This record gives sequence, structure tokens and C-alpha cells, in this order.
Amino acid sequence: MPQTKFGEINIPSRLLTSTGPVNVHPRVYKAMMTPVIGYGEAPFLPVIDGISSMLSEVFKTKESLCMALSATGSAGVEAGMISLLEEGDTAIIGSYGFFCQRMAEMARRQGATVIEVKGEWGKALPPEAISEELKKHRSVKLIGMVHAETSTGIKQPLDQIAKLAIEHDALFVVDAVTSLSGSNIEVDNWGIDYISSGSQKCLSVPPGLAPCAVSPKAMAAIKSRNQPPRSWYLDLELISNYWGKDHVYHHTVPMSMLYALYEGLRLVLEEGMEERIARHERNAAALRAGLEALGLRVISDENHRLPQITPVEIPVGIDEAAVRGILTDEYKTEISRGLGEFAGKIWRIGLMGETSNAGNVMFLLNALERILPKQGYEVPLGAAAAAASKTLSTA
Amino acid sequence: MPQTKFGEINIPSRLLTSTGPVNVHPRVYKAMMTPVIGYGEAPFLPVIDGISSMLSEVFKTKESLCMALSATGSAGVEAGMISLLEEGDTAIIGSYGFFCQRMAEMARRQGATVIEVKGEWGKALPPEAISEELKKHRSVKLIGMVHAETSTGIKQPLDQIAKLAIEHDALFVVDAVTSLSGSNIEVDNWGIDYISSGSQKCLSVPPGLAPCAVSPKAMAAIKSRNQPPRSWYLDLELISNYWGKDHVYHHTVPMSMLYALYEGLRLVLEEGMEERIARHERNAAALRAGLEALGLRVISDENHRLPQITPVEIPVGIDEAAVRGILTDEYKTEISRGLGEFAGKIWRIGLMGETSNAGNVMFLLNALERILPKQGYEVPLGAAAAAASKTLSTA
Repeated sequence: MPQTKFGEINIPSRLLTSTGPVNVHPRVYKAMMTPVIGYGEAPFLPVIDGISSMLSEVFKTKESLCMALSATGSAGVEAGMISLLEEGDTAIIGSYGFFCQRMAEMARRQGATVIEVKGEWGKALPPEAISEELKKHRSVKLIGMVHAETSTGIKQPLDQIAKLAIEHDALFVVDAVTSLSGSNIEVDNWGIDYISSGSQKCLSVPPGLAPCAVSPKAMAAIKSRNQPPRSWYLDLELISNYWGKDHVYHHTVPMSMLYALYEGLRLVLEEGMEERIARHERNAAALRAGLEALGLRVISDENHRLPQITPVEIPVGIDEAAVRGILTDEYKTEISRGLGEFAGKIWRIGLMGETSNAGNVMFLLNALERILPKQGYEVPLGAAAAAASKTLSTA
Repeated sequence: MPQTKFGEINIPSRLLTSTGPVNVHPRVYKAMMTPVIGYGEAPFLPVIDGISSMLSEVFKTKESLCMALSATGSAGVEAGMISLLEEGDTAIIGSYGFFCQRMAEMARRQGATVIEVKGEWGKALPPEAISEELKKHRSVKLIGMVHAETSTGIKQPLDQIAKLAIEHDALFVVDAVTSLSGSNIEVDNWGIDYISSGSQKCLSVPPGLAPCAVSPKAMAAIKSRNQPPRSWYLDLELISNYWGKDHVYHHTVPMSMLYALYEGLRLVLEEGMEERIARHERNAAALRAGLEALGLRVISDENHRLPQITPVEIPVGIDEAAVRGILTDEYKTEISRGLGEFAGKIWRIGLMGETSNAGNVMFLLNALERILPKQGYEVPLGAAAAAASKTLSTA
């Protein structure tokens, strides 16, 4: 065989207790080996219809059209902004973390007037802050909120803000990249008009797709725009023509990723949404108990903690990158650094999808118990495991 | 194991002599089983750098930054339009097929004045048509052309139009979705400022990525915009911060697809670009000879024929969908229908990447020889195989 200077891919197997991507079930990898086939062929369409149906169950919606956009999670958020906003519109975006700021940036690029309602990083935004802002405007097209703020580990309550959106005839748009299938989401009951996620978080599928749900009200808003959306590729109306029952060609969809998502969603429904959410809560609680037993502080407001992401304050004097380096090199384990305001101040530990299991919690706590003393931070030996174990046994 | 109502994926193995996706090499499928890992981790970055380097060889450029965008081929074309055009700009787009029209639509959505220079479907556009149009405008920001028009089977010559772009200080933008690695492309020599492709055509990787190359002049144009591009996700400057040497986080890239592209590009370089292009030409010539021996007419202008896509006129009285149906059902083989002006008038037979081999040509010709008489179209038995075989042996 002729050789080139580019060698074979060589990637280690790691425990991905990071903010994502997370570990992938073998059945999902296996599904990706399914041969590609034409995007409009009869044997392929059950994959599209199955994903749409299974997403309806995961998003808890009968009203909205569920699709998986052919791009990563951030494109899902942007598809909402691009499709729903145009020049002259006013948008209110809750701002309490890095991904809130990104959503606001995406909205601004549409030429809309964007008001960022600023909250504190590490806390949820009180609905009153949105309510106060709404009083200042005659017409607001859209209220955008991040459900699971990955940069701060905060789960933002949505139901009251959804009610405000209905009262003010605004569209309610949600970034659920990190929350979908790890936290409860009720699209129909809460009244969410557009919500999007990523395949690589709690769904435990490789990154590359953005599952989303578009309400009839959102679709009507797109159809009544003055100008078409600035992107043809992320135009939710055009995309819906393929995902709807007529399956009209828009672009060649990424079949291998769709096979993966189909299998990932089967795994979600086999486990059951309630049990899956409970599992995420249980393992995160054990992790927190263990971290606190190590003397570490979890900085997210305890009333609004995400089970997916646990943000841990870096103890004074500790070289945060060195600890992450030892974890990857010696323990083949990833955790994430802080972003934005929290860069250099916190680690972010993820427990999502396949990664969220009790063994991983115990392994990671033990690794930290062994690494931190070598960095000059003394810890009580065995205490973390005891605390985590007790939490798991009583949950 | 708990069961859901959603069954296991069940996709037949087919010969994909269609317009794409095409058949995938087992090494590419195997690469997709490589475990996912953090997008910024040291073991992963050689995948990014390797793809960028290998794409430089395939695009024949030392000047341009090569990347693979995290979306399908059409998003690659749109990323060029979104990043390079803004309100007040004028763009000239060659229009001689379905994908030309799509490029123009993407350009219009940026608020630019878009002039479509119309040519005839099934023929290349004479450079004079662009030259004439250029004379009418004081300033043209961009000239956009489709290199391989998949809807008509035409390979558009680019070198003279590239010279016109340089003379008029316009950016030269090329859609090479169907041509990359199946036809010669010389980004530096011709002077292409932005070019993009898709993973699922001649590169023979599943769909989901858009390889592209951005010249320093194009990047400078993006950096000197008055307003940021309307899309954050498809903003080539932001994306280049990750693909450049600093690997700054933009979005979570789809590692499984990138593993596939890395392996697909290794296969391209192992074969060698010249031999790969010759293989595409050889097999397409054999297919054409065989089709003509069946009495069928290839409608693309013989001076500008694509080897990737052979457009065949449907004989009078033949039910075109019925023939495609028999091919898929009985022969497990896909060919494509016509698009746009050519809908219902032609079939499009693709020979790209792994699909372009002599055995597939002979198999498909024999299948047509068996199917067409049953549809009332008599053919001389054995003539197609003889003609194709002779062409292969003398090529």
C-alpha cells in the first residue's frame, strides 16, 4: 500500500467528564457503520420520521415539528435567531453566562435590537428581570433564554418566563444544548416556540447534529417575515419541508450522524425519560457530596444547580491546568476549564448521558484525592468516596 | 432489554451511482468508530492539522487556509456568500443550472445586488458573458461560479473567469461540491479566493462536512466588512481561529465526521490526485460509450462534460421513475432524477470516489440492458458491454 506522510488516526479512549462531547454507547458507534444511502429513498425515510417522533417524546411536544439540523448545537441556536428575527425586531435575551452572550450575538447579527437582561454568573435570572424589561417596550418579537448554562452550571427556570412571553405575544426561544434528556423540558406545557439542543451532551451521540422543535406559532412567524432569513441553510421553513411528511429535498442530510442520533434516541426511550433525568440528578448529587468532602466548593446556586455540569472553585494556589493535565495524562480523564468571567477560576465537571454513572463519579473523586495533595492541597483520604457512596445509597 | 416502538435501523447495501452520497470505503467507516474526545485536546489536534494539510494538496494551494466546515456541502457555499457579501455589494453569479441558482439565492439573502448571468442548461458559460457584465458595473465585490454543475453534468472552465476577477479586483468564489478530487482544481494557479466542497461526492466520505479554502485576499475582505456576517456559525473568520495554529474554541466540531474525512483524504493521497482524476475520466468515458451503444443520448456538451455526473435523456415513452424503481428494488442500485429545468427529462448517473470503478459501470449498463426492453425500449444485447469494455481497454 502506498504510504503518505499522514499517519493513521490515533486517539486514546478517555473518560469524558467534561462539558462535551461525552462518551458514546457502543450501539451508537455501531449504528454509524450503517451504509449511507440516498436522502430521499424509501428505506431511509423511517430514520427521519423515527428521529422526529422520538424527539417529540424527549421534548414533550405534540404541537411542534421536531427535526435534527445538519450542523452542531450552536447552529441550532442560531437557526432560531436567523429564522425568527429580522431588522426592526426587538429581542430580549437573558444574560447570565457565556452561552447567553453567544445567543445575544447571534440575535444582533440579524439586525434586531437586542436587549441583554443581565443576571449574575452562577445564579438563575429572576423572571421579574424579564418582566421589568418587557414593560419598557411596545412590541417584543422574541424572548431568548439558555436553559442549561454550561459556563456556570445553572439551570434556568423557564415556566414563568414562558408565561410572560405568551402575555406579551412574544416568541419564546430556548437553548437546551446541555439540558435535553438530562433535565425535564416540557415544550407544549410551558409554551416554548423554538428550542434546540446538541447531539453530544445528554443524548450521548457524537457532535454534529442540532435536534430542535418548532411550534406552529414560530413557523407562522417565519412564513410572515418581510425578508427571507439571511441563511438559506439554517432557514427553518425550508428545512421543515424535508422533515415534514412530504420530505422535499433541501440539502443532502448527514446520514451517518442521523443513524447515530436515531440509535441514541432509542437508548434514551429504552431507559425512560424519568429514570434518565433521575440518574443525572443522583450521580451529580454524589459528585457534589464527594467534592465537598474534599473541601472543594461548588459555585452554582444550590437552588438552581444543573446535574449535567458541576462548576468547582479552584482552590487558592492550585495550578488548574496542571491538574487537568494530570487527569488526562495519567487518568485518561477529561474535565473542562472555565469560560468567560470564570476562566481560570473554576473547573467544570460534566456528567451527561453515558458519562453519568456511579463508577465514573467514584473514579474521578479518587483521582482528585490522589492528585490534589501533590499540588499542595491536602484532602482527607477516603472522605469523598464515603460521602459519594452514602449519597448514592440513599438517593 | 426494554423495547420501544422504534425498531433497529434497517438500511440495504446499495450501489450508489447517484449524485451522492456515494459508496464509502471500509477504512472510512472504521475511522468513524474512533472514540470522540475533546475538540481542543492534544491527541485530537493532529486530525485538524492533518485535514487542513491534506486539503491543501487536494485543492492545490499553499496560500489559502483549508478547513472543513461543520455542516454539509451547501453550507460551505453559503459560508462564502455570508462571509464575503454584505448590503451594498454587487455580485455576479454564473447561472447555468440548479446549483448556480442556489448560489445566487444565498447571495441575495445577504442583501447584495445579485446579477445572474444566464447561460444554457447543459452547456458551459462562455467567459465573455461574464466579461460583458463586468463592463456594466463600476465595482463588483464577487464573481461566483459552480465548477461542477450537478444538475446538468457540465464542468465549467474557471481559469479565464478567474483572470477577469483579478482584473476587476473582484473576489472569485467557486462551488466545487461535486468536483473536488474528481477533476483538476488549482486554487493558487487559477486565483480562487474561496472554494468549497462536500464530503460525500468524490471524496467518498459520508455527508456532513464542507471542505473549503480561503485565500488571504478573501480573509482580508471579511476582516474589513462594515458589519459582521449575518451568521456566527458560518463566519469564516471565527472558524479560521480554530483551524489556524492557535486552535481557539469556536464551536464543538463533529469529531466522528472529521475522523472520516481524515481517512478519506488519506485514501485520496495514497491513490494520487492525477491517477484519481484519470480514473474518474476513464470510467465516465466507458459509461458514456455504453449508454450510447444502448441508443441513449448524453445531453451535456461534449466539450465540457463532467466525469462525475452523466446526464442521460429519457427515451420517449419511458416511465423514468419506474426504471429507477426497478434499479433500486431489483438491482440495489441508485441513479438520480433530473432537477429544475431537467426534471422528468433526464436521469443523472454518478461515478464518484469509491463508486467510480469499472465493475460498477459494467453492472449498471447490464442492468439497463435488461430493464429498458421491459419498458418497451429495445436495445442491442451485449453492445453496451462491448463498447464500455473497449473504452476501458484503450483508455
